[in-house]
Amino acid sequence: MDTLELAEKVERGDRRALARAVTLVESGRADHRAEAVTVLERLAKTGRQALRIGLSGTPGVGKSTFIEAFGMMLIARGLRVAVLAVDPSSARSGGSILGDKTRMDRLSREAGAFIRPSPSQTHLGGVARRTRDAVALCEAAGFDVVLIETVGVGQSETVVAEMADMFVLLLAPAGGDELQGVKRGIMEMADLILVNKADGDLKTSASRTCADYAGALRLLRKRPQDPEGFPKAMMVSAAQETGLTEAWAEIEALIGWRRENGHWQGRRAEQARFWFQEDVRQALLAQLQTPDARARMRALGDAVARGEMPPGRAAQDMLADLRAVSASSGK
Amino acid sequence: MDTLELAEKVERGDRRALARAVTLVESGRADHRAEAVTVLERLAKTGRQALRIGLSGTPGVGKSTFIEAFGMMLIARGLRVAVLAVDPSSARSGGSILGDKTRMDRLSREAGAFIRPSPSQTHLGGVARRTRDAVALCEAAGFDVVLIETVGVGQSETVVAEMADMFVLLLAPAGGDELQGVKRGIMEMADLILVNKADGDLKTSASRTCADYAGALRLLRKRPQDPEGFPKAMMVSAAQETGLTEAWAEIEALIGWRRENGHWQGRRAEQARFWFQEDVRQALLAQLQTPDARARMRALGDAVARGEMPPGRAAQDMLADLRAVSASSGK
Repeated sequence: MDTLELAEKVERGDRRALARAVTLVESGRADHRAEAVTVLERLAKTGRQALRIGLSGTPGVGKSTFIEAFGMMLIARGLRVAVLAVDPSSARSGGSILGDKTRMDRLSREAGAFIRPSPSQTHLGGVARRTRDAVALCEAAGFDVVLIETVGVGQSETVVAEMADMFVLLLAPAGGDELQGVKRGIMEMADLILVNKADGDLKTSASRTCADYAGALRLLRKRPQDPEGFPKAMMVSAAQETGLTEAWAEIEALIGWRRENGHWQGRRAEQARFWFQEDVRQALLAQLQTPDARARMRALGDAVARGEMPPGRAAQDMLADLRAVSASSGK
Repeated sequence: MDTLELAEKVERGDRRALARAVTLVESGRADHRAEAVTVLERLAKTGRQALRIGLSGTPGVGKSTFIEAFGMMLIARGLRVAVLAVDPSSARSGGSILGDKTRMDRLSREAGAFIRPSPSQTHLGGVARRTRDAVALCEAAGFDVVLIETVGVGQSETVVAEMADMFVLLLAPAGGDELQGVKRGIMEMADLILVNKADGDLKTSASRTCADYAGALRLLRKRPQDPEGFPKAMMVSAAQETGLTEAWAEIEALIGWRRENGHWQGRRAEQARFWFQEDVRQALLAQLQTPDARARMRALGDAVARGEMPPGRAAQDMLADLRAVSASSGK
């Protein structure tokens, strides 16, 4: 299938073509990359834009259950839902989140849903670029909502926030010390905090946790992109499917306000600029990731560590090597 | 003066030649860089190694007074002392620390001393490389101790720790809340905490602060590179010149132990490898810092922000431009 045909099928919402296009943007091969860029360029002309929601939560908060319940609620409203993931550990673990679609059994069987695990990569920058491209493909394929899932470890949240229109933090009910457990930086990114498991024995504890976070959010400086009352903390129960429509109503209210006040467009524009710059930087550094370059870096690094060569001389030798490779490959 | 002559003069300890060589390593010009690498390579053959001490402290702790008093004490012991600085704000402020030698009036007039302000650069990576090269020049010029000063803001401390054999944190006496003020990451880098201004009315307060930090240091995990009792907290008074010889004795004890146990050599080897890798990365990214490249990045970034072009396509255009420039310049 050529790139034109692939792009057309993605635009028509063909999920198999979408999966194939995502595989293309995930590839590390230069020819695949060129094809991916062409597909993305064609699809940019559709002008379609989904609501991109970043979602973070540490293991144990019930993230898969929430995504499934929340996704099914959106599907029931006639919306199409894509779920992607940024997993910084995927290089080591082979993909620890969303690796198994059976974790979202019902959602994965819906015609209006598309679920894709985090691409396996050696570094977060590579995962980020591939996920961002996958988001663009899902948008062009006509999905209304793209959920971008990550784990609560810090750097990956920043990456997800850079490609999302808003950021949801999912938490579990906990004792009084729980506030300490969430990094301040992550809380400052959140537009909406959802305290999950607000059911059965945990309901009282969830209520207290929710009040604690609501209080903490009020202490944060008001951001220009927030309407009155945001960021906000709410309770949900993914297991009992309560609070989900209320959470969706708040998300719609927030995004509606941001669209009306130009913040949505402004954020998208700055994100696009950032990803362009990041793409260029990553591509320049990717020259160091070929097997030859890695071997040469290791050998020169060893010589430097043994004191046989100053770092600056070794760096100049390495750069000369890279230029020779680039010249001989005719690039 | 050619590079051979310059290197020879630096090796003989000629301070004017040293100042000139430092200017050379600070230059952004490619031909200067090539000369600098040659000079550094010649001088690496001297095999001379100074004791490199990283020193951090927020404004107001009396850092200049301490460096002057500590430096004069070392000079009195027949040691030669160089003082360099890593100032991440130098790009904006034109050099806020060590910009004015009159702050170290006595030390700057000593024949055995060499004081150099932080190089002005647009980014910390550039300041870091230039300072690290200046350290190597001072070592080859026969200085016994190189003090590398920075301000207590976090990232610059990491950079200084990466080029120092040990790290000293200078603090002022303060109330009970002071411990909160020092970032945990910076405290974990410190091999020695010196509470300054332990004189007059502040002596009691200094004593309490010192005890607080000693307690906090005991809570940190023991590192393999620390002998018994380290990291350590002590009191000094730079103004009254008390505690300085005691601090120096502790530094000598620490470094002696690390040399005997292989940690000193191991750290130097890993630092050299790190700087080589960092040099290569910075050089690759430096292609984006020419006036032409910056203008092109801005124009493409604007087009991407306006939605006229997907980020990936703009990135490929930019990379093609950079390759064309590189090819036409015959590099």
